[in-house]
Amino acid sequence: MNETDFIAALRKLPLHPGARGLADDTAVLEIGGETLVITHDAMVEGRHWLPGQDMADVAWKLVATNLSDLAAKGAEPLGVLIGHVLGEGDERFLAGLHDALADYGTGLLGGDTVSSDGPRALGLTAIGRATHVPVPSRSGAQIGDALYITGKLGAAMLGFEALRDGTGAGTTAYTRPLARLSEGQALAPQVSAMMDISDGLLLDAFRMAGASEVSLAIDSKSVPVAAPDRLLDCLKWGDDYELLFSLPADANPPIPATCIGKVEPQGFAPLFLDGEPIANPQGLGYVHE
Amino acid sequence: MNETDFIAALRKLPLHPGARGLADDTAVLEIGGETLVITHDAMVEGRHWLPGQDMADVAWKLVATNLSDLAAKGAEPLGVLIGHVLGEGDERFLAGLHDALADYGTGLLGGDTVSSDGPRALGLTAIGRATHVPVPSRSGAQIGDALYITGKLGAAMLGFEALRDGTGAGTTAYTRPLARLSEGQALAPQVSAMMDISDGLLLDAFRMAGASEVSLAIDSKSVPVAAPDRLLDCLKWGDDYELLFSLPADANPPIPATCIGKVEPQGFAPLFLDGEPIANPQGLGYVHE
Repeated sequence: MNETDFIAALRKLPLHPGARGLADDTAVLEIGGETLVITHDAMVEGRHWLPGQDMADVAWKLVATNLSDLAAKGAEPLGVLIGHVLGEGDERFLAGLHDALADYGTGLLGGDTVSSDGPRALGLTAIGRATHVPVPSRSGAQIGDALYITGKLGAAMLGFEALRDGTGAGTTAYTRPLARLSEGQALAPQVSAMMDISDGLLLDAFRMAGASEVSLAIDSKSVPVAAPDRLLDCLKWGDDYELLFSLPADANPPIPATCIGKVEPQGFAPLFLDGEPIANPQGLGYVHE
Repeated sequence: MNETDFIAALRKLPLHPGARGLADDTAVLEIGGETLVITHDAMVEGRHWLPGQDMADVAWKLVATNLSDLAAKGAEPLGVLIGHVLGEGDERFLAGLHDALADYGTGLLGGDTVSSDGPRALGLTAIGRATHVPVPSRSGAQIGDALYITGKLGAAMLGFEALRDGTGAGTTAYTRPLARLSEGQALAPQVSAMMDISDGLLLDAFRMAGASEVSLAIDSKSVPVAAPDRLLDCLKWGDDYELLFSLPADANPPIPATCIGKVEPQGFAPLFLDGEPIANPQGLGYVHE
């Protein structure tokens, strides 16, 4: 079964009311007057990390990608559970896990450790506390809003290429991405919609437009990129974990961010790039095996 | 790195205060006046399930084993997140997941779906709400307490053998174990210590004794077993997911349960079986590959 069909089938199962779109979004759980945000992301050997890559970086990224999901909800991390498959580089994995937990000021809550042969799939569940309710979602963008991103796109792409090709250029943006936790918390009370850019700006904007039932118009030249000569690659490449959000047109973001477009009535395509409609998500996101 | 070393290393990482013993026990998270119980258990192809086994049963068991961890804490399930690796039998996996969620009255909160080659490791995170605080732990057994179990041990062993050998005998106890949720909730206010028996009575009792810093004396003839002619196998085999708990000597359990021994001062072995000391956990639990 392919992933799309599997996720469609999951949506027909008994769902928790806080199961927002399953794999597309992050679960929200109200309990005792608080709102928890819970996410589970997995990484697969040979697919989400390069063979021979330092397992300390893999552990870091596993934490950072999950915490980035919390950041997009304005949540502060409470703890993580790991689903670990033992194998090569476990000492380095532990070292990277230590770095990430210490750096983000969160702690290990539990998990499970198993043995298996073949390529490993490592999972992590992160639990956070929402600092603002309602929790931002990707479905709230309003017509007339301005569209913003934090940071610069394409840095992870350059890091990946440097690592793959051994050029000696900086790889940190790819190996040790940062979850925008403080930015997400500052933005949560103001945004109409927010998500993290894990699969590339274009693909993730396409998803936000669909969830919000609007069209998003992006001006490519306004997007800060790490490689201006490869603009489209930067817009398609994932792994930067910046935040994409919409704000009322007259609002100013409370953190450094760049306006890259606007929210328009739902047109005949969910996404317009420099006025050109993009109707099909196929090929929008960079697949980095 | 082997599992014991890995878990020992995990304990040196930044831990959440609710990280009770990591892989040995279940995380407890206090939030907004409520207490959450959170567990993550994984199952590996060829290790936790037989080749060719119905994936609907695998999904059921993945849910049941995690909910059994909640049962041991007296928690009611709030929802689950899955970490799924796509592969053979996904339709059946979804059918079994549906059955388990519907049967236990809980819902899917989220998760992640990935592709990988080779044997699959499937993970599940279950989140529950404690119905009684303090949440029962395995470390509270008091000298003089009586030791009890629910149900009968060895039924999963017989089910496993029937499935493996194709004898036509009943396999349900192995393929669709039950989490003792209502029993756990009824017991939580009364027990001094509680845990589920996932790895066999002897090994799990050994662990409870260690955590509680006592010795446990078990009378083998008093243990209800599914195969009286293979008593020791029944005491060593896991996968029954019954509850093991201690109660003050003058208390009566509020649910059907059998007294199988008592809690004694810490002797020179953590466990005494019919008066014989068991000092080493090696070989206590049945390893069912």
